[in-house]
Amino acid sequence: MRMAKGVEWALHTLLNLDMIGGGPVGSGQLAEAHGLSASYLNKQLQQLARAELVISVPGPRGGFRLARPLENITLLDVVEAIEGSTQVFHCTEIRCSGKIGELSPPPTGACAVNAAMRRAEQAWHQSLAAQTLADIRTEVDSTPLVRQVVRSALN
Amino acid sequence: MRMAKGVEWALHTLLNLDMIGGGPVGSGQLAEAHGLSASYLNKQLQQLARAELVISVPGPRGGFRLARPLENITLLDVVEAIEGSTQVFHCTEIRCSGKIGELSPPPTGACAVNAAMRRAEQAWHQSLAAQTLADIRTEVDSTPLVRQVVRSALN
Repeated sequence: MRMAKGVEWALHTLLNLDMIGGGPVGSGQLAEAHGLSASYLNKQLQQLARAELVISVPGPRGGFRLARPLENITLLDVVEAIEGSTQVFHCTEIRCSGKIGELSPPPTGACAVNAAMRRAEQAWHQSLAAQTLADIRTEVDSTPLVRQVVRSALN
Repeated sequence: MRMAKGVEWALHTLLNLDMIGGGPVGSGQLAEAHGLSASYLNKQLQQLARAELVISVPGPRGGFRLARPLENITLLDVVEAIEGSTQVFHCTEIRCSGKIGELSPPPTGACAVNAAMRRAEQAWHQSLAAQTLADIRTEVDSTPLVRQVVRSALN
């Protein structure tokens, strides 16, 4: 049970796009900034574009730019854009299978095991949705020289 | 990003062991109760035994029995027993790689992206730890006939 590494890549790349003033920057240059695979990062950027977090700008001076301010991008937006779904527990309704399933009357309510596991995931998703990339930028900005470094690396 | 189906199997099996009064019950019988693979369920039961949630009783009338009351078994105990770790976001410190890594002074604090993702997972784990299998049993008990069905299936 492991989140795709593309989530880490996407989060840092969105922060970098903000720090240089929005873009557009090519995927090759964005990948080089963190020593990432350009083709794999390009795939993540396409997913971020489909989720309307970045805009793909065509042409020789094109690339990717932020589609909206970091205040309006939550961790959940990014995780969902890359992972597709954030559901990790999948109920296969085993209560309706086997001997127990045969002997039981048809279930009328939701499976209690599933409901409990969903409540816990809900707490996770709520925390992901409550944190914006602007909040993270505030923390990153406490690192000395960070903006100068990102601008130098992406210019 | 998907939790092993063994988590669902383990949760239902622990509830069944409680409903029949604790066990021991063989893994074959426990598997048949929900139409599961006996060899795969046996692997989950061994993991539950290593985590001290069940006790393996040897001998011809042996099997598995609960190691402690459901009040003392949380969802987090079961997920950790089966999944090993509940950490889904893995920071690979890309901030220290590539051009940005080269130009940056050595980091002094934790990565802000990682810290934010960890906070969200913490909320999930806290909710998993706050729910015991006894809480789920209370919900399951509202299903008509459930105890009789489980006892018939496992006797």
